[in-house]
Amino acid sequence: MHSNDQLHTDIPKLDVQTGKEVAAYIDTLTKPTGSLGRLEEIAIKLAEITGERFPEVSPPAAILFAADHGITEEGVSAYPKEVTVQMVQNFLQGGAAMNAFCEQIGALFTIVDVGVAGSIEHPNLVAKKVRQGTRNFFVENALTNDEVMQALQVGQEQVQTALNNHAKSLILGEMGIGNTTTASAIIGVITGGELKQLIGPGTGLDDAGVAHKYRIIKQALAARKPNRHEPFDIMEKIGGLEIAAMAGAMLEAAKERLPIIVDGLICTAAALIAKEMNPRVVDYMFVGHQSFEPGHAKALQILGEEPLLDLHMRLGEGTGAAVAFPILLSAVGMLRHMATFDEAGVSEKQ
Amino acid sequence: MHSNDQLHTDIPKLDVQTGKEVAAYIDTLTKPTGSLGRLEEIAIKLAEITGERFPEVSPPAAILFAADHGITEEGVSAYPKEVTVQMVQNFLQGGAAMNAFCEQIGALFTIVDVGVAGSIEHPNLVAKKVRQGTRNFFVENALTNDEVMQALQVGQEQVQTALNNHAKSLILGEMGIGNTTTASAIIGVITGGELKQLIGPGTGLDDAGVAHKYRIIKQALAARKPNRHEPFDIMEKIGGLEIAAMAGAMLEAAKERLPIIVDGLICTAAALIAKEMNPRVVDYMFVGHQSFEPGHAKALQILGEEPLLDLHMRLGEGTGAAVAFPILLSAVGMLRHMATFDEAGVSEKQ
Repeated sequence: MHSNDQLHTDIPKLDVQTGKEVAAYIDTLTKPTGSLGRLEEIAIKLAEITGERFPEVSPPAAILFAADHGITEEGVSAYPKEVTVQMVQNFLQGGAAMNAFCEQIGALFTIVDVGVAGSIEHPNLVAKKVRQGTRNFFVENALTNDEVMQALQVGQEQVQTALNNHAKSLILGEMGIGNTTTASAIIGVITGGELKQLIGPGTGLDDAGVAHKYRIIKQALAARKPNRHEPFDIMEKIGGLEIAAMAGAMLEAAKERLPIIVDGLICTAAALIAKEMNPRVVDYMFVGHQSFEPGHAKALQILGEEPLLDLHMRLGEGTGAAVAFPILLSAVGMLRHMATFDEAGVSEKQ
Repeated sequence: MHSNDQLHTDIPKLDVQTGKEVAAYIDTLTKPTGSLGRLEEIAIKLAEITGERFPEVSPPAAILFAADHGITEEGVSAYPKEVTVQMVQNFLQGGAAMNAFCEQIGALFTIVDVGVAGSIEHPNLVAKKVRQGTRNFFVENALTNDEVMQALQVGQEQVQTALNNHAKSLILGEMGIGNTTTASAIIGVITGGELKQLIGPGTGLDDAGVAHKYRIIKQALAARKPNRHEPFDIMEKIGGLEIAAMAGAMLEAAKERLPIIVDGLICTAAALIAKEMNPRVVDYMFVGHQSFEPGHAKALQILGEEPLLDLHMRLGEGTGAAVAFPILLSAVGMLRHMATFDEAGVSEKQ
């Protein structure tokens, strides 16, 4: 029986002292005090995370975990489940939205099969399939305890690979038809929020579809009874493999002082799981954007983080994090390139 | 006596047909319909502006107009007016926030002296001084009719230079101690908003300073009586030279179908002036960010545009537009790099 303790994720405390030094330094730069708003807060947080006075965030690693969900048997998605395999091929060929945004920001892009139902052969695919998708959590537990552990470890390993490739920050993404259902169920369990208010159209359900999805999740949770305080129990009973992998990756990134940019609904469900395993992981997170899915706002409330962007996006894949990444670059650029009042010979406030 | 008609700014209508084609094309890309939210709207608007199905926005031109304000004699700014000259030197040496962000986004950076009080010699400074700052609009008109016309034309010319340098979009910025006072007065006149609710701390006034600034603007407007429907009259009576130059640049950019990214309070005051001169100019604008200055929200309401970012910034210089620029790049990247469902062999919605 695996549990939390086995993951060895001792997350260091933030380097508050370096953060203070950077905050004081920012106030010497040629601009009115505080006038760069959240960019200043981001720069300070990056200093606390990395322990560096001039932190770097480039290149980011963008790791996308793909997996299927047995719950699709209940008709909870607008797309057929074959789309997971097809979209993995699309990622490998560079045709998805996430590819476009990763190219823009110079991200080290990796796609990992941690549980796709189907067979994909491609030299660039990281093949770490734990099983052919989760079991249908409407009728049985989604994963065994051992499968959860394997998926978490896949996530941890991929962060080590990213570090070996000199990544300076981490963007996490996912692909898995049905995973807004899994994520909404997890968010419902962990936040204790009213399920009806957490469930949205996902990739494009109509009102009847959303109502059906609500009934399925409600009945499934009543049958499975996941323990809100036991993240392993939640993942065993609900899934999903890509969510567990993302949680593992977050814990490992925090352990290694690597800044994490969280994406939308699914990624935030993984962040809640990771937080249950070690609350300190949240100190290492930025939230890229506010998703249009209703459950996201509730999840962010529990996470205690403000999103950087609100562009009405609801795609997943890590796209909200990738589109937000240049804001972190701006914060770093402010620190690295601006002159101080002294250096520039500019008079200070009267 | 110069007026609007002399500027020859016939702004073309948006290319609605190309916009429709691009909207239809976006719905064939491998993502759920509408799931990229505002990025999709931005791509469509860029297509309407440029008439191109695959518009470009890089490189952006970042043109920063610097000028002084006689109203600083009334003690309305937290910084001494010498800072305008000093900051122009800082821009020329690459040490300001705007330099850092322009480097990040690969902008063609230009700094134009359109009315700095003082003498600056530098090979990279575009010297187009109309006069040594505006007159103090608390005691007299800020500019003559002829000076307003000259400043507008400086803005127009700089856009032509940017086009010759192959700029594909336009970021406008400004530097001028005292210019939140000028901009707030303009926004008060054009929006008809309650002055008290429009006036903020600028670069860092305390409460007493803000109250003083309010009284100065209120008395000055009562004495000058600018005509809300006469943009030339507003600029003559209030100023400023950099605001007129930005308005001229906006009108010229719209005429040339060049997308404009509007910055914070001062730039938005220029946008309101430009809109009074030709309402169609707004069709060519994106608003980079929501400034922390209270007058900005009111001005944006009149402009009818939603800002892309809300990062609590209040620096000016064009920084809010520059930090927002990568969002336009993402919209363009979506169009240029994503595969269609057909191309990728991905199944569509059930």
